[in-house]
Amino acid sequence: WKGAPQFEDKEAGFSFKPKGFVQFDSGYVENPGIESQNLGYNTRARRLVFGAEGTLPGSFGYKAEFNLAGGAVDYEDVVLTYQPKGSPLQVTIGNFYPLSGLETMTSSRLTSFLERAQAVDAFGFSRRLGASVGIVDPQDRYTLTAGIFNAPLVSGFNNDSWQASVRGTFSPKVGEGGRLHFGANYQHRETQSDARNFRYRARPFTQITDVRFADTGAIAARGDDIVGVELGGIFGPLHVAAEGHKVWTDAYAPGTTFEGTDGVGGGAFYDGDPSFSSAYAEVGYYLTGETRGYKGGRWDRTKVLNPVGKGGIGAVQLNARIDYLNLEDRLSAGAVGAPRFINGGTQTGYQLSAIWNPIDYIRFLLQYAHADVEGGPSAATVAAESDAPIQDRNYGVDSLAVRAQVEF
Amino acid sequence: WKGAPQFEDKEAGFSFKPKGFVQFDSGYVENPGIESQNLGYNTRARRLVFGAEGTLPGSFGYKAEFNLAGGAVDYEDVVLTYQPKGSPLQVTIGNFYPLSGLETMTSSRLTSFLERAQAVDAFGFSRRLGASVGIVDPQDRYTLTAGIFNAPLVSGFNNDSWQASVRGTFSPKVGEGGRLHFGANYQHRETQSDARNFRYRARPFTQITDVRFADTGAIAARGDDIVGVELGGIFGPLHVAAEGHKVWTDAYAPGTTFEGTDGVGGGAFYDGDPSFSSAYAEVGYYLTGETRGYKGGRWDRTKVLNPVGKGGIGAVQLNARIDYLNLEDRLSAGAVGAPRFINGGTQTGYQLSAIWNPIDYIRFLLQYAHADVEGGPSAATVAAESDAPIQDRNYGVDSLAVRAQVEF
Amino acid sequence: WKGAPQFEDKEAGFSFKPKGFVQFDSGYVENPGIESQNLGYNTRARRLVFGAEGTLPGSFGYKAEFNLAGGAVDYEDVVLTYQPKGSPLQVTIGNFYPLSGLETMTSSRLTSFLERAQAVDAFGFSRRLGASVGIVDPQDRYTLTAGIFNAPLVSGFNNDSWQASVRGTFSPKVGEGGRLHFGANYQHRETQSDARNFRYRARPFTQITDVRFADTGAIAARGDDIVGVELGGIFGPLHVAAEGHKVWTDAYAPGTTFEGTDGVGGGAFYDGDPSFSSAYAEVGYYLTGETRGYKGGRWDRTKVLNPVGKGGIGAVQLNARIDYLNLEDRLSAGAVGAPRFINGGTQTGYQLSAIWNPIDYIRFLLQYAHADVEGGPSAATVAAESDAPIQDRNYGVDSLAVRAQVEF
Repeated sequence: WKGAPQFEDKEAGFSFKPKGFVQFDSGYVENPGIESQNLGYNTRARRLVFGAEGTLPGSFGYKAEFNLAGGAVDYEDVVLTYQPKGSPLQVTIGNFYPLSGLETMTSSRLTSFLERAQAVDAFGFSRRLGASVGIVDPQDRYTLTAGIFNAPLVSGFNNDSWQASVRGTFSPKVGEGGRLHFGANYQHRETQSDARNFRYRARPFTQITDVRFADTGAIAARGDDIVGVELGGIFGPLHVAAEGHKVWTDAYAPGTTFEGTDGVGGGAFYDGDPSFSSAYAEVGYYLTGETRGYKGGRWDRTKVLNPVGKGGIGAVQLNARIDYLNLEDRLSAGAVGAPRFINGGTQTGYQLSAIWNPIDYIRFLLQYAHADVEGGPSAATVAAESDAPIQDRNYGVDSLAVRAQVEF
Repeated sequence: WKGAPQFEDKEAGFSFKPKGFVQFDSGYVENPGIESQNLGYNTRARRLVFGAEGTLPGSFGYKAEFNLAGGAVDYEDVVLTYQPKGSPLQVTIGNFYPLSGLETMTSSRLTSFLERAQAVDAFGFSRRLGASVGIVDPQDRYTLTAGIFNAPLVSGFNNDSWQASVRGTFSPKVGEGGRLHFGANYQHRETQSDARNFRYRARPFTQITDVRFADTGAIAARGDDIVGVELGGIFGPLHVAAEGHKVWTDAYAPGTTFEGTDGVGGGAFYDGDPSFSSAYAEVGYYLTGETRGYKGGRWDRTKVLNPVGKGGIGAVQLNARIDYLNLEDRLSAGAVGAPRFINGGTQTGYQLSAIWNPIDYIRFLLQYAHADVEGGPSAATVAAESDAPIQDRNYGVDSLAVRAQVEF
Repeated sequence: WKGAPQFEDKEAGFSFKPKGFVQFDSGYVENPGIESQNLGYNTRARRLVFGAEGTLPGSFGYKAEFNLAGGAVDYEDVVLTYQPKGSPLQVTIGNFYPLSGLETMTSSRLTSFLERAQAVDAFGFSRRLGASVGIVDPQDRYTLTAGIFNAPLVSGFNNDSWQASVRGTFSPKVGEGGRLHFGANYQHRETQSDARNFRYRARPFTQITDVRFADTGAIAARGDDIVGVELGGIFGPLHVAAEGHKVWTDAYAPGTTFEGTDGVGGGAFYDGDPSFSSAYAEVGYYLTGETRGYKGGRWDRTKVLNPVGKGGIGAVQLNARIDYLNLEDRLSAGAVGAPRFINGGTQTGYQLSAIWNPIDYIRFLLQYAHADVEGGPSAATVAAESDAPIQDRNYGVDSLAVRAQVEF
């Protein structure tokens, strides 16, 4: 049993496990003064995932997980894998995360806050159809994986965007039960030929709203390059983590022309190649003595020491995070706006969360977040009476939200 | 086995059961004389449900059932529950029916007719995201449950409609194997701030058509209050049931203004607060001697006595129902229409059904329904030559439909 | 175990098997010279199927398989069956293929090429809601099945299209382990009353593009009649197959009028009843000695003799196919176009495929296809400089694509 029963025919090499999880979010996001129905109070099914995973004879395996929240079908990992027993080789084909960093590669069921760090949202680190080859140390000391990917799993026939990525991690054991994580990742992405643009933007640390106060708008671009560094540490009930990403956008200059039906899909042209960045640092502590799980270059499930129903109260963890995002860049002298100044704004989050796992497979998470926004598309409206340049106007957005999660 | 296998690790508290059912409907709805392609003959997958349910250690449980008919994802119960063993406490979080009455709370797989009584359709008793706390007698003599709910499970970010509800049931055993059911429910609902309206309407007793002959159109309203009473009885192979609902709508008066993007979403303003009502009474009889199942304040699965494949012919049940809906109300003197007279019409159904369960998990249902309509949006067209006032013109709509259902 | 575990309670008659498969396609389709983003390179989830099948006491059974590729819900077999043990009677109710031929009735997981022969795509042999009764020889020597069907499983309420079909197969054993297949099928179809038209069209032998070089456009029609003949043979590692279909369309003449909301939905009127045809022949050979599976009038799973992980390299099969489609017809003298000449074009495919099954439940397929197109909607653009009549202009389209498939 791992939430649901795991069936095995070890001799033949078969195993099968039905799999699913639900995440319900409810909460309140302050409206700093814009006209929108999509702030305030909301309740939402964040993810409703159903599927299966298993192994087949010959060292093959599969996962097929569908996210059915939102009235349509979305996709978690849908992959075919090959991993010979005892060998570090790991081949993956299908729909999965393109090796974009520690937060991205960690399951949404296991993060310290409601949402992954804002770089994931802002820079579009979403699953894509592709293939990767990895060297994964059977003793779990290092990983090195490279992949090539086409577009996300959708039904269009014009998916010629692509990306190539590589990620390495090193995770030595230190002291008594301690663990360090060092990682680095690099992504090269090219846009789809009939929609050559990137739009970088991030929500205020919860997805009970779709309003983004930090948003570059669509930037006409051939592609971008992204470098990320990852640090982590586990010391008994304490864990720390930090990551940084820097993005260099390969923008199209004003006046660029395209053949046939190729084009920028409404992207704005700028006087140069902008760059953006994001970084966070977090610390968490289990009041009840658990140690955060870690495996294969990503956070793993934490084992609850004294679960409810066995005389315990479950695991209680407190977390704090600072999360910074810079989506502003000046390309040439002059007023804010294309082609001179990308006013995507900066957004800094100050987040606190309390997580209660009554048992291994159930989690309640309470999160408070204060978003400190400077500039960005809403600054002129929210701070209408400020004398400061639009890109320097400041305001805050508070939110409080809770998640109920059950896995099977 | 309950259709599909139920896996259990009783000591640890785990259980898991894959779950699903399909309902195919085919039939004919008479066109009384309106221009529509959506009457006549049709075949349809009414529900195609797939999912799982189970328990987890610590008295937790879950259900996740997705209705995949209609080319998109819809939701049946998707819930996390907590119910300590032997205790009457029952906590439910997620997407479920807001305690709206006996028909609503009974599974669509177990109703006596193709569709639930028309109040469910007319007054919009559909599942919502919410939480409830209930006292459920372990000896199954009573239930008392209260809940608070946000909007139905959809992906919008402007879901600030809500409702609070409470329902109580009392079900004493009488005579030899007899059972009575008394219930009452109350719901207070408030509309979404950018679409402040209710539209009450009902189909002619089958969902192989989407035409509604009883329909109020959208009424500008802050909210409504609904009271329901429930009666039922089981006496061997015989069962009887009756329910009534009364709705008081808290309408907006003509001239009401709204701030920002708030508004009535096209709802019509009326000269007062209208009220509507619905009631049905049914009787059913098992020719083959079964007793209708009942448990926890709702109808439950009936156990087939002599199933096909074991020398029997299965269970055969005959049912009859009268179902009345009144969606007309006069608010002030003058002609039919806003702001004076809500011409939603009245619809009375005379229904007969025959249900054959060859085994516990398969059901074939044949239903004849005569809908007697007075007034409503189509009366002027259908009874074009009548001299009576539009709201008093009568016509009938016959339908005949069959359902094939299999559960696992 | 059949990929996933099969659970059984044989005495009671229950069985249950979770079921799924994924097919990822990636490849390149040459653009012969039209303006389209939907040719060239693409990667796509061809099918992502999840569901279950099982049996219930009393000789009942069910299948419910949902295709979740494409961001929405589509349907594979969703059926309730009745098949008394040892009896040839087989009743099927639900969503399934309307008996349209050998390729149609064979699972997409088991075909010799990426896609079924182009008649399936061109003439719209897709699943529909219906019921069939069959005589299926328990010794697997013959089948005879007749069915009646409404529209495909969608959510509309105007589905009054229908079809009746019948199919018979005869499959004697010959020589040592040899097998022949003879089949014939007939389909009568009538269009939906508010969209009375057929559009016959086919892709260039892969669904990584949605461009069709052979396409009749919509033809105003009451219905059509289709006759198919099927031939097949298995001789050890060798198999051969050939099918032909002829379609007679019952078209509406120019000037036809319709009542109410009935109509041709934009179909073009022609001076007579056109007819179209398609045929293919294929041959395949297992280099590794396997024999192609066959059962119940359709191709079945091939058992890999020496799978990977047990010292073997799996099964390797090479296949070649010629596939011809004729969508041109002259109805009266004069230029190409309605009402005189249906310029749907002809498309002839020359296909080669190599299939590697490392184990029974995994398959990699590499396909090269050359489509030889004459006439059709793109001929004027592609062969713009040709002096030939538009319907006689020729051009070729090459494609190369690979599929990764895993079943459970």
